[in-house]
Amino acid sequence: MTLLYADPEVAAVLDAATTVDAMRDALLAAYDGRLVAPPRAAAPLAGGRMVLTAGHLVGEWYGFRSYDTFGHPRAEQLVVLHDAGTGAVRAVAVGEELGSRRTGGLGAVAVDALARPDAATLAVIGSGRQAWTQVWATAAVRPLREVVVHSRSAARRDAFAARVRAELGVPARAVADPGAAVAGRDIVVLATTSPTPVLRAADLRPGTHVNAVGFKQSDRSEFGTDLLDVAEVLVTDSPAQAADYRPAMLAATTPYAGRLRDLGGVLAGAVPGRTTADQISLFCSTGLAGTEVFLLDRLTKVAAATR
Amino acid sequence: MTLLYADPEVAAVLDAATTVDAMRDALLAAYDGRLVAPPRAAAPLAGGRMVLTAGHLVGEWYGFRSYDTFGHPRAEQLVVLHDAGTGAVRAVAVGEELGSRRTGGLGAVAVDALARPDAATLAVIGSGRQAWTQVWATAAVRPLREVVVHSRSAARRDAFAARVRAELGVPARAVADPGAAVAGRDIVVLATTSPTPVLRAADLRPGTHVNAVGFKQSDRSEFGTDLLDVAEVLVTDSPAQAADYRPAMLAATTPYAGRLRDLGGVLAGAVPGRTTADQISLFCSTGLAGTEVFLLDRLTKVAAATR
Repeated sequence: MTLLYADPEVAAVLDAATTVDAMRDALLAAYDGRLVAPPRAAAPLAGGRMVLTAGHLVGEWYGFRSYDTFGHPRAEQLVVLHDAGTGAVRAVAVGEELGSRRTGGLGAVAVDALARPDAATLAVIGSGRQAWTQVWATAAVRPLREVVVHSRSAARRDAFAARVRAELGVPARAVADPGAAVAGRDIVVLATTSPTPVLRAADLRPGTHVNAVGFKQSDRSEFGTDLLDVAEVLVTDSPAQAADYRPAMLAATTPYAGRLRDLGGVLAGAVPGRTTADQISLFCSTGLAGTEVFLLDRLTKVAAATR
Repeated sequence: MTLLYADPEVAAVLDAATTVDAMRDALLAAYDGRLVAPPRAAAPLAGGRMVLTAGHLVGEWYGFRSYDTFGHPRAEQLVVLHDAGTGAVRAVAVGEELGSRRTGGLGAVAVDALARPDAATLAVIGSGRQAWTQVWATAAVRPLREVVVHSRSAARRDAFAARVRAELGVPARAVADPGAAVAGRDIVVLATTSPTPVLRAADLRPGTHVNAVGFKQSDRSEFGTDLLDVAEVLVTDSPAQAADYRPAMLAATTPYAGRLRDLGGVLAGAVPGRTTADQISLFCSTGLAGTEVFLLDRLTKVAAATR
């Protein structure tokens, strides 16, 4: 019988530590070839596209995430988990929680692998769902001492800071100036919908780690090449997907592409991550395909174990 | 809240008359451009592909069916219905019933439009799920007097005939010879997995209507060009999908393609169907994309009205 999970059930089962563990395992599985995740497929419909990102953990499961580009503010995504042995649909998740927790989990794995071990302060630019899950998951990999948030809306950044205090128990404040937000922080999260840079690399101090979750292409990007120029450690969760962006992902263009590393390789110890405390590291999140299905599989197992 | 339908619920709500009505409406909507149904999209996975056929009834809903090509005998398909106004997922159907009833419904619409008004005897070659839903739906558009079934397995064809008697209340018998099955019948259904012809056109009498549901391509087909040569009325549910087959659909090759007609056009009165009682008509079923979502939308409405 197929299990159906809506956002409240997903939120109840997938705590940050569980999510981060699953995403670490997924990145390692993709790195060693067990998790197969091809480029996305899309069907054009009048006014939008239906898009499918599929994944296959060989011998375990296969499935996909679907989403559309009609632009409904409350559009729901679907994640579908098939049993690889029988083809049966084991579970379906409907909504936004699974996908955004997935992206948060990938970001936190990057922080864990790349930020300084003693990183304790975090600045986040953006106050939406993606900004939240990045901070939520990061709090599971570093004992955060302070969160500073900037976004254009004073009401939304204030609410975000209040939510950090209430749900994560971490001191948090909202600031009106993005430069002031990032100056001197150990970890910086960019999670905006801005098509133009929202920070200057010159405002970062040595040793900072940056997670970039929003636009990062040559025609629109929430950061500029100044950040790529100072980021000595440049990492993505999927070099294949990074190379597949049209227009190009900035970090996958010359001269940056040659030093863009695979987060899975860093986790496996095959590729170096941060080697000194004063390097600036940058994680360019692509949302590795197949990780949503990986997380749904984990969700079903955790739910079954705690029932 | 998303509604989840498994096969038993689908079967309980979608009777043959409801299904045929929905498929007639879907064909008309596709013909006049309200139902948008692009070519299928697929993502390659190790050992198989994840395939998506999408549809959009402008102003009402959009969605898709997904299936895979791993070849599991009990693999489950998914049909997903989004509300076009909000993007929310209104319903998900998991299993095989919706898809096969959809195909049966399309076939029965073809029979209703193309078979002689007094057609009352039916032969079916094949005894699987697709064969069943063709007969099941056809019984809703013609008062069948007799069903004759042939398939290679004596046990399966006997069971099929017994099911016709029990569930449809129509006299039915199984025969060992396919030529004897089709000789003299008003309606012939081909619903096999055979890659080579299972009937000779010479065995058909004038005035017969044929529904072809199985393989029908240049490299494998359950009928030969002898059938296309005698079929004066040649119809498909999607000329666009017929033209898109690789290798080519036989009916979409020279000299047949020029006279392949759109069933939606026949229903709309824009294209002639059968014009004399002794023509042989042939319906080549492609499974018009978007019709599964159309049927799921109808299912939710019928279920809501009868709750």
